[in-house]
Amino acid sequence: MGYTVAIVGATGAVGAQMIKMLEESSLPVDKVRYLSSTRSAGKVLSFKGQEVTVELTTEESFSGVDIALFSAGGSTSAKFAPYAVKAGAVVVDNTSFYRQNPNVPLIVPEVNEHALEKHKGIIACPNCSTIQMMVALEPIRQKWGLERVIVSTYQAVSGAGANAIHETLGQLHEAVVDGVNPKDLRAEILPSGGDKKHYPIAFNALAQIDVFTDNDYTYEEMKMTKETKKIMEDDNIKVSATCVRIPVLSGHSESVYIETKAVAPIAEVKEAIANFPGAVLEDDPSQQIYPQAVNAVGHRETFVGRIRKDLDAEKGIHMWVVADNLLKGAAWNSVQIAEKLHERHLVRPTEELVFELK
Amino acid sequence: MGYTVAIVGATGAVGAQMIKMLEESSLPVDKVRYLSSTRSAGKVLSFKGQEVTVELTTEESFSGVDIALFSAGGSTSAKFAPYAVKAGAVVVDNTSFYRQNPNVPLIVPEVNEHALEKHKGIIACPNCSTIQMMVALEPIRQKWGLERVIVSTYQAVSGAGANAIHETLGQLHEAVVDGVNPKDLRAEILPSGGDKKHYPIAFNALAQIDVFTDNDYTYEEMKMTKETKKIMEDDNIKVSATCVRIPVLSGHSESVYIETKAVAPIAEVKEAIANFPGAVLEDDPSQQIYPQAVNAVGHRETFVGRIRKDLDAEKGIHMWVVADNLLKGAAWNSVQIAEKLHERHLVRPTEELVFELK
Repeated sequence: MGYTVAIVGATGAVGAQMIKMLEESSLPVDKVRYLSSTRSAGKVLSFKGQEVTVELTTEESFSGVDIALFSAGGSTSAKFAPYAVKAGAVVVDNTSFYRQNPNVPLIVPEVNEHALEKHKGIIACPNCSTIQMMVALEPIRQKWGLERVIVSTYQAVSGAGANAIHETLGQLHEAVVDGVNPKDLRAEILPSGGDKKHYPIAFNALAQIDVFTDNDYTYEEMKMTKETKKIMEDDNIKVSATCVRIPVLSGHSESVYIETKAVAPIAEVKEAIANFPGAVLEDDPSQQIYPQAVNAVGHRETFVGRIRKDLDAEKGIHMWVVADNLLKGAAWNSVQIAEKLHERHLVRPTEELVFELK
Repeated sequence: MGYTVAIVGATGAVGAQMIKMLEESSLPVDKVRYLSSTRSAGKVLSFKGQEVTVELTTEESFSGVDIALFSAGGSTSAKFAPYAVKAGAVVVDNTSFYRQNPNVPLIVPEVNEHALEKHKGIIACPNCSTIQMMVALEPIRQKWGLERVIVSTYQAVSGAGANAIHETLGQLHEAVVDGVNPKDLRAEILPSGGDKKHYPIAFNALAQIDVFTDNDYTYEEMKMTKETKKIMEDDNIKVSATCVRIPVLSGHSESVYIETKAVAPIAEVKEAIANFPGAVLEDDPSQQIYPQAVNAVGHRETFVGRIRKDLDAEKGIHMWVVADNLLKGAAWNSVQIAEKLHERHLVRPTEELVFELK
């Protein structure tokens, strides 16, 4: 007997990859249910060659569902995830809504799979930019400790959804083919669909992802700070981020500077990363080998290279971390969490409902 | 009586902007001479509406020249700049060849104009990525001191010349219009024309600019380290860089983290930058105001925003620094140096030749 798995947001950029990851997964799946908003309900998608009609998400959608993967925005998760839990499903939520909730484990399986044990019906998948950084840093943290992180990101537009991909391609077409000055390109989505102003991404770099918080960091930047502390279970790790969108369709890159607690020899750091599950070392300057976004697309692993000592700080290390933001950054990490729940016999109805029905 | 000004490399991406900057300059120019390699000699360009035929650069090209602006690669400067000096010209060299030479002032006029006084015939224009960072950091260094810099760059392809622009546009056309997978795009120039392997830049971020040095940093990264120390006349400033090319045609962006010697209140930092010549403060998160590459193109100023305290380090500050790499990063900084030489009456033949004729 396999599971009934629901995908909420099946028609989105991440939803499409969730379907693919689920098709390729070791998870025993008997049935899938594709759920969406009114706009996409009625569309027909497939699962392992079978047609599946997309249904409207309602409070009653989750009867008989064992695992519900949510990736349809924070408000959809806020509204429906508790109903899924109440119906007996385990929720893996890919939005930011529950990530800082103390009742919700925030999981990167390679790093803190053990935290799944205390789940109360909802497990959160971290932000894309956090996940890949965690895979690169955990092998270092384990051996030498982690004092501090300063990260600058080079994030792909697919992290902002299918509409952002469409907008980027349209702008590039206008700029490259029609010769429109990049400054004059129209924008309606990026840098953040929910914010007041929109700017072109073609031939640009936008130092804003998500909206600004009160401290002049963006929510995306604060996600990297807060999620790192929660996943690594250490509030003392210092993390400051600058999150930047660049005209890349998929594949997030990150320039990561860290300070370890103990001095970490570079050769041993490389070995630790090469041996860490989910991480791939791509680091040979003599052969111009380093991670690249275009090569990471389609892969589940996190690629790490350009590992080198800071020129001045004895415990300082720089590195370049690249992963497919739709896979390890979202769909694969979510399905991987589902696989781990299965392996640990944690796919089961929750006895006590701790999440508020709205 | 005005000057005779030679532009060596007049047909390149920077050369074209040098002509424009010179046309708009306050420098009294009587005559221009456009010099190039064999490949471009004979082409006809213009200066203030007059036709000027491009001549082949030879050891004898500089007779009668008062100011020679070089931007045709390090080997051309190495070979011909001493002949220009011997002929009585003052050279402003935009290549890296003479930058670390103790006889050569390395100048960002807003920062160390005074160092022009000791020139011996050749003045070097710093690397594009260094120049804009200097304009942003000097007002802070002056008031609170500068202990440390960690910078990650988002550099435009025009920094690698006209061929790199052409290659980028071609790749984007193939990817956007013909649907070629970015991974399969052909590349012959980037990341570095002089290196063995070439990678696509369309939909990619390449963590290599220039070739690698022995310490696993690239030359571009080491330029930022060494040039900062020389320009700021302080070998103790700690600088580590990660230099990255992104699919932007013009306009370099930089995520800069600094630690000051004294605690610098953010409001005062913003004021210092706003009041510094050549710097423009663009920083209002509530209105989504921050520097953008597409807006910086065509301007001589360096734009600074996203200025905020590090979340943990009391003396740590993050900022986002953007400038037109062909203007402030190259052509404008070179012509601006020429203007300052004129104002200081330093356009004069050098008595003793300290540079080797090759």
